[in-house]
Amino acid sequence: MSLFGNFVGFSEKKNTNKIFKTFNPIKNSYNQESYSIASDKDVQNALELASNYYEADYPPSHADRVLFFNLLINFLKDDQEKLKNSYCKETGLSQQRFTTEFNRTINTINKFTKLINTPSWKEISSNLDLSTNIRIEKHRVALGPVLVFGASNFALAYSTAGGDTIAALAAGCPVIVKSHPFHAGTSYLVAKAIIKANQKSKLPEGFFSHLQDDSHHVAQTLISSENIKAISFTGSLNGGKSIFDLAMKRKTPIPVFSEMGSTNPIILFKDKIKENKSFWIDKISTSICNDAGQFCTKPGIIFYPKNNTDNNFIELLTKKVIETKPIWMVHPSILKRYNALIYERKKQSNGLLYQNTKNKDENKAKPTLLSIDIKNFISNPSLQEEVFGPFCLLISYSSIEELKKGLKKIEGQLTFSFIGSEREFEQHKPLINIGINRAGRIIFNDVPTGVQTTKHMHHGGPYPASTDSRFTSVGTDSILRFTRPIAIQTRQS
Amino acid sequence: MSLFGNFVGFSEKKNTNKIFKTFNPIKNSYNQESYSIASDKDVQNALELASNYYEADYPPSHADRVLFFNLLINFLKDDQEKLKNSYCKETGLSQQRFTTEFNRTINTINKFTKLINTPSWKEISSNLDLSTNIRIEKHRVALGPVLVFGASNFALAYSTAGGDTIAALAAGCPVIVKSHPFHAGTSYLVAKAIIKANQKSKLPEGFFSHLQDDSHHVAQTLISSENIKAISFTGSLNGGKSIFDLAMKRKTPIPVFSEMGSTNPIILFKDKIKENKSFWIDKISTSICNDAGQFCTKPGIIFYPKNNTDNNFIELLTKKVIETKPIWMVHPSILKRYNALIYERKKQSNGLLYQNTKNKDENKAKPTLLSIDIKNFISNPSLQEEVFGPFCLLISYSSIEELKKGLKKIEGQLTFSFIGSEREFEQHKPLINIGINRAGRIIFNDVPTGVQTTKHMHHGGPYPASTDSRFTSVGTDSILRFTRPIAIQTRQS
Repeated sequence: MSLFGNFVGFSEKKNTNKIFKTFNPIKNSYNQESYSIASDKDVQNALELASNYYEADYPPSHADRVLFFNLLINFLKDDQEKLKNSYCKETGLSQQRFTTEFNRTINTINKFTKLINTPSWKEISSNLDLSTNIRIEKHRVALGPVLVFGASNFALAYSTAGGDTIAALAAGCPVIVKSHPFHAGTSYLVAKAIIKANQKSKLPEGFFSHLQDDSHHVAQTLISSENIKAISFTGSLNGGKSIFDLAMKRKTPIPVFSEMGSTNPIILFKDKIKENKSFWIDKISTSICNDAGQFCTKPGIIFYPKNNTDNNFIELLTKKVIETKPIWMVHPSILKRYNALIYERKKQSNGLLYQNTKNKDENKAKPTLLSIDIKNFISNPSLQEEVFGPFCLLISYSSIEELKKGLKKIEGQLTFSFIGSEREFEQHKPLINIGINRAGRIIFNDVPTGVQTTKHMHHGGPYPASTDSRFTSVGTDSILRFTRPIAIQTRQS
Repeated sequence: MSLFGNFVGFSEKKNTNKIFKTFNPIKNSYNQESYSIASDKDVQNALELASNYYEADYPPSHADRVLFFNLLINFLKDDQEKLKNSYCKETGLSQQRFTTEFNRTINTINKFTKLINTPSWKEISSNLDLSTNIRIEKHRVALGPVLVFGASNFALAYSTAGGDTIAALAAGCPVIVKSHPFHAGTSYLVAKAIIKANQKSKLPEGFFSHLQDDSHHVAQTLISSENIKAISFTGSLNGGKSIFDLAMKRKTPIPVFSEMGSTNPIILFKDKIKENKSFWIDKISTSICNDAGQFCTKPGIIFYPKNNTDNNFIELLTKKVIETKPIWMVHPSILKRYNALIYERKKQSNGLLYQNTKNKDENKAKPTLLSIDIKNFISNPSLQEEVFGPFCLLISYSSIEELKKGLKKIEGQLTFSFIGSEREFEQHKPLINIGINRAGRIIFNDVPTGVQTTKHMHHGGPYPASTDSRFTSVGTDSILRFTRPIAIQTRQS
């Protein structure tokens, strides 16, 4: 039996008595390999190593980290085939999706390497006051040891060497990753590459540790530790809020970046869906169904004009969605929850359910739409709670006044999308303001999935989309999550 | 009897059955005027007005706010004499201090007016991706209604029209001020000027409300309200942490900016205190004693080299401090706590207390030093808890190793100051790194008081100095506390 351990700094620690396995959604069976659960001692040692790294007499420079990132890219590329096999058998996702996500991971590392190689990213402002001869320079410093949770839906791009880890390491923070148990094998391989790069780059031990657990114990110990100075998580509202609440009970408050997804409403006005009908139907249905809708920006609500009888847009969209081929979800527990939530929403709303009943494969997620009237939504706003998977609520509105009432019921979101003409955007400014007050990204004539990973992106939003709307978890500005400003004041003599 | 009410938007609400009075520390008696405690209905109405302002169909522009600020400056200047009388009789501080604080308040309003009149302050970055024809523009938007607490130690500059209120209003957030009961009269006069400017500038009602209470009830209701989207406080660790803890129990987490002061250690190396001895003695003693040491950046700990027998620096500093004329503190309860904490520190440490026993006026705060050895401090780091007032711990160290151990015991601070030669700064880099990991501002050869209010300042620091080390509460960057980024994505057709 192959047993894979925890990386407590450079040491791989295996405890044979507490292990778990990952699951292959395609084969519908457990994978062979076993993963060792980190012991309390492993956790304490990893925490101490991280703190010692941060409190070093002479902290490593950004140039040391650049070397580390360059090595890491090479080591990940060396293992690309191994990673692909592990990824596919632990997530049920396609090889094509693996390639996209792998490239995105490499791309992220490259972007942050470039960023910190331009040390000016740290500078905020500076000034010499000639009347007092006092110089003040404001720049960014690392927050300290960061705890990163692997995400279930991005085994590479938001897990062990994902956006959060790379941004924190780039900022100069040591990182402890609590890996996601669904893809422990993929995470282990990535962790091994990180440790190898850590050793070869001569960055001190403690820069990175990797701990495994299929339950909450390791996570809870880490969250409550005074050694941890920031926490980053991508996942469900339940998970993200529990982490936040536990962290807020610490003696020392720290930033918690829980990105918890949302329903990403799309508001359809009348003008646009008349033209380019098939373009929009393709775009929206793909946004709902792609990779079984397992994205935090999947649109979960569409508002459409009811009295638009010359237009069969919604009928065609419905057909397109439910005829999309079902695929596996990353874990049977996710699929189970998906099916349960569809049933719950149907019961809550008494709406019309659209699902292709010809698909009999119970191991796959059926693309599903639920059609309701906006009056129903207004009186029952809890219908907006996220259904993770290829599901969307279709909400019909009879007037702009009614739409406005509905939009005002919407809670914090990652995105709000408006599809319409310039004339309509101008005319319905108050509706767009409702979106601005509730979302981290406003999209005109596009869909929310396919998030650009540039400096310009903002991926976050008011609660419950995230626990800290002031920071993005995608794009290079996400490094700001792991820094704080400091002013250096010098009296020139 | 003159009774002053609460401003619930434009309406002044007086409840005659629940009132309180302010205290004159110089006369040692209550002032005549009475202040009405806000009723639960007043609080709810103020919250609704603020939310309605924020959720307006067409939010006011920055130009509307510029007009408001210009009017406010005029109205405050019109009332300068009235304000001075009220300020002095409610704080025991001098007319000179009033003038400094009044000018600083006007200066703050001017700076933020200038800032928002340059609308580019909101822009973060933007980009047009030519391959997809997608434009993304990232800029800052207002967080929503902000709750500001008046500070006890700055009746003008960190109270009703102080840095927090002005920064939040400048950002476009409506503000509810819970005034500080120690200087309710000063706060009332300022609130009246704000409401007048609000009305004259034609900004909608709800932009500002002002609520009074001499207990915790009004504050607790406001903190727990889902209408509030950020909270700002300057004061004690106890007060700031209680606000934070209560806010974290809300359904929706929000930013809480509690700036809670610190002990602002000064580390004296050997080289500098040999030269310019009297310059440094003047500077440091003033920093400890000025305005009865009622500043969050007052130095509360000085580390000095013990084996420096050719140097009587510490003896001369001690003499200078304890011979500084005692003055009143802003409230007898603050003075009572000051005296109790000195007694507690003396008991905890069994150190040597220096105080001028010739001063018999029990209504004034005696400048006090407590001398201990660093070994004592290392084994009892709770000695570092802030003593608000003209008090400082003198800690002697025998070696740099010992100093290092002592510095590592220090918790989060607003500032860390090092006084020494360039040679010493270079030689003791690891000690400076300890400061960088623990403070929001590092000061070389200067004292922490006299905080510059420029863009370049950072006033904040790791807990317990503040609950959010990532933001400053002084200088124009403090506006960032009340904003979040938003990305506007447009597919160009």
